[in-house]
Amino acid sequence: MNFRSDVAVELIDHMGNDGLILRAMKVSVAQDKDVDQMSSDERIGKINFLMKNKHGTPFEHAAMTFRVEAPIFVFREWHRHRIGQSYNEMSARYTILPDDFYMPDSDRNLVQTGKAGHYIYKPGSQRQHTDVMTLIAEANRVAYENYEKMVEMGIAREVARMCLPVNIYSAMYVTLNPRSMMNFLSLRTNKPPFLVDAAADNPEVGEPHFVMKRGGAMFPSKPQREIEMGAEKMEEVFGDLFPITYQCYVDNGRVAP
Amino acid sequence: MNFRSDVAVELIDHMGNDGLILRAMKVSVAQDKDVDQMSSDERIGKINFLMKNKHGTPFEHAAMTFRVEAPIFVFREWHRHRIGQSYNEMSARYTILPDDFYMPDSDRNLVQTGKAGHYIYKPGSQRQHTDVMTLIAEANRVAYENYEKMVEMGIAREVARMCLPVNIYSAMYVTLNPRSMMNFLSLRTNKPPFLVDAAADNPEVGEPHFVMKRGGAMFPSKPQREIEMGAEKMEEVFGDLFPITYQCYVDNGRVAP
Amino acid sequence: MNFRSDVAVELIDHMGNDGLILRAMKVSVAQDKDVDQMSSDERIGKINFLMKNKHGTPFEHAAMTFRVEAPIFVFREWHRHRIGQSYNEMSARYTILPDDFYMPDSDRNLVQTGKAGHYIYKPGSQRQHTDVMTLIAEANRVAYENYEKMVEMGIAREVARMCLPVNIYSAMYVTLNPRSMMNFLSLRTNKPPFLVDAAADNPEVGEPHFVMKRGGAMFPSKPQREIEMGAEKMEEVFGDLFPITYQCYVDNGRVAP
Amino acid sequence: MNFRSDVAVELIDHMGNDGLILRAMKVSVAQDKDVDQMSSDERIGKINFLMKNKHGTPFEHAAMTFRVEAPIFVFREWHRHRIGQSYNEMSARYTILPDDFYMPDSDRNLVQTGKAGHYIYKPGSQRQHTDVMTLIAEANRVAYENYEKMVEMGIAREVARMCLPVNIYSAMYVTLNPRSMMNFLSLRTNKPPFLVDAAADNPEVGEPHFVMKRGGAMFPSKPQREIEMGAEKMEEVFGDLFPITYQCYVDNGRVAP
Repeated sequence: MNFRSDVAVELIDHMGNDGLILRAMKVSVAQDKDVDQMSSDERIGKINFLMKNKHGTPFEHAAMTFRVEAPIFVFREWHRHRIGQSYNEMSARYTILPDDFYMPDSDRNLVQTGKAGHYIYKPGSQRQHTDVMTLIAEANRVAYENYEKMVEMGIAREVARMCLPVNIYSAMYVTLNPRSMMNFLSLRTNKPPFLVDAAADNPEVGEPHFVMKRGGAMFPSKPQREIEMGAEKMEEVFGDLFPITYQCYVDNGRVAP
Repeated sequence: MNFRSDVAVELIDHMGNDGLILRAMKVSVAQDKDVDQMSSDERIGKINFLMKNKHGTPFEHAAMTFRVEAPIFVFREWHRHRIGQSYNEMSARYTILPDDFYMPDSDRNLVQTGKAGHYIYKPGSQRQHTDVMTLIAEANRVAYENYEKMVEMGIAREVARMCLPVNIYSAMYVTLNPRSMMNFLSLRTNKPPFLVDAAADNPEVGEPHFVMKRGGAMFPSKPQREIEMGAEKMEEVFGDLFPITYQCYVDNGRVAP
Repeated sequence: MNFRSDVAVELIDHMGNDGLILRAMKVSVAQDKDVDQMSSDERIGKINFLMKNKHGTPFEHAAMTFRVEAPIFVFREWHRHRIGQSYNEMSARYTILPDDFYMPDSDRNLVQTGKAGHYIYKPGSQRQHTDVMTLIAEANRVAYENYEKMVEMGIAREVARMCLPVNIYSAMYVTLNPRSMMNFLSLRTNKPPFLVDAAADNPEVGEPHFVMKRGGAMFPSKPQREIEMGAEKMEEVFGDLFPITYQCYVDNGRVAP
Repeated sequence: MNFRSDVAVELIDHMGNDGLILRAMKVSVAQDKDVDQMSSDERIGKINFLMKNKHGTPFEHAAMTFRVEAPIFVFREWHRHRIGQSYNEMSARYTILPDDFYMPDSDRNLVQTGKAGHYIYKPGSQRQHTDVMTLIAEANRVAYENYEKMVEMGIAREVARMCLPVNIYSAMYVTLNPRSMMNFLSLRTNKPPFLVDAAADNPEVGEPHFVMKRGGAMFPSKPQREIEMGAEKMEEVFGDLFPITYQCYVDNGRVAP
């Protein structure tokens, strides 16, 4: 049995770039053929305008296909993204799932405090880490051994797999466009707040005051760490392929247009 | 620990009926206000026309909300339906999953023969049934005990749940319209073929000949039995709420328009 | 020939209420059956939490069907909303379009200044109003007369309609859920900005400061007035049917979750 | 003023090929890395299996972006395709629409007989062609002249355009994947029936018998000729880029999987 602590993301293919997004945008004023003549500043200005004003459709005229390896509990969350994301995943009905299991590594916060919707996650003790590893590994081992026994007995794969745990690895191809990518990143990465209410610390301030911080999310999200690990790897590729779009996305508070 | 062998489906709310579908259809010829005067035969004829000619949009002007209890491996398949289906599911990040597990009952085919894409499922022996129950139950027991231990140690729910198996029960609300319902039923129920190639048995027939059988699917599908159990319960409710639409769907080979 | 200056919106049917949204939300913590016992304050608090944190899916478990009469140029914009909106529209291929035409009324801003993306609309002079009415009416008259002539000659409706103008009225049924409703309202109503940069008026302020104003849009949009007329009528119905959801939507800057 | 009788379709960019579709398919059995070693016959067999069994998702892992020029009445129909198609179109709010108008050419059927849902289109007489051209051109001329007058008077573009006809040309960028392409082609091309009921001509045959014809549509559709002109041009490009997928689509009765 193999224990891994990663989410693997590999770019398989892609179409388009910031220029194609601009061409799709500029067809609205019949100037899509003029994009090649635009200066770098103009390009940034136009894409920033789209982002700021939430004109999202031009960001759909491009595509990226990734191969992702992650435990099932990550795919469970991922596949809830219905719009502009296409999936094909390894099937436990058609193939024997390999004995790869996800195990939180030593950096992973293990302890949760607070109540639903406001959880705070903290590092566990060394003892907690050891216990978690032992308890998960034991359950995984029994599950996989019993799975193998059933398969050897000729039991249908779709039945035998019922005892497999949600931390077993699966693999998928996912295709998405920059707009659905930005929506995914907004919801599946956890960035420090973009706006801070200055009035909260100062009772003399009558109305709420917000201070903008660069680089954070206007609408912070609290994804599970493991799907965030996949999102972070995709974000890196996205930033390389669409540098202007990515920068404007970050500069505008990581709000998907 | 509880072992169940069912998928529970409860209708929570619904909107519309065959008449609302007809009104949406008849706006195309500015006669939506005349639907109340239509005879039963006219209604059947119009809805049959829509179904036969794959005019699908009128079937979107209605809605049904269900509460479903099923094991995770069923929801994994269900949530791949992205169009016209809305979901909210119990979260193992926010709540302790109860110790309910799915167990195939004695009628469930256990043995698989043939190759991928062409599997045939057959009943298992009494011995196989006993072994499957024992092996699944053992793995489930270890998994849930270890899950409980981690929760008691203060481990975050989202971490502790990693060892839980895909046959643990979850619950969801799902809302869909008649069009997405028919698409779901077409893919998630297994009905005998609607068309049989008469030429296959008779080499003298030059071109393929198809014989239509009432009640079956023109494009047969081979879903896993457990999601089919949910689909069958939804189909029953759907047939009660939209009797003309349902009958025309069946009469036209269970092809979603 | 009839000239109208309205967009007609009629509620045909609906499903669900704030309580159904809450039930869909509370299934995540296995408490969906307890919603009936929640106090009014709890309900508001929960829905506000969803809105603030952009948890959008619970708002999909409800539905509204409307009948809308509007000129074609309004439907052209409306039908670009692809997600969670279903349409059936009067067809100029199947029926003779009635001779109803949209004409801007005397309150409608007629003059545009500024450049693309930053237009400002202002009232026209009396003379401009008269001229616009005359010029549109003349073109409409010629178009409809020629349309009628072609139809009388036996020309196919789908050909004869080619000369009809985009201000001729059509009708449609549209079905949407509260989430797609809020998205539509955010993009198709023009509300004064929700955040004002206090630093812009005060050079001494190093970082930008934003002051929140109740009732406006955090991301203001600049729709054409005529689709906004339809959106405003839908907003009124939406507020009546889902009062808590609507209030939280407004209180959170009209950002669709 | 220019009169045109075409729909222009230009491929701007694309991603993927039959091989990428196969890789996405083969991840289900953990063999996506082996696609390069597959023989041509194996590739055809696998894609045919997907098509025949309506396994549609692998066909979403590829993309094509087109620039299309067509009259507004064509875009009105096109934009009703919501799933897997992305659009950006020339805006009459932001730019002056050029004076290009669609005019049916001499091959275009002009006359319609039969009733709604069962129309038959036939060529018009020479006289009818002349009259249609004259009547459409006259209405177009008045509309465009009045449009220009309003623009010159400083009237907002979004108001002035109200009198423009639906046969004026617009332009758009459209991005879609092979699955949405096949759905579009199925609905927007008119192909002779794929199945003919042999029993209809022979009362002695008890049950209906269907004879399959290669190359036609199992579910024939009756699109307006002008959108079909666009679809035919896209079909040609699609067949070049994805030859196996395209052949299997045609061989399986043009049913989108």
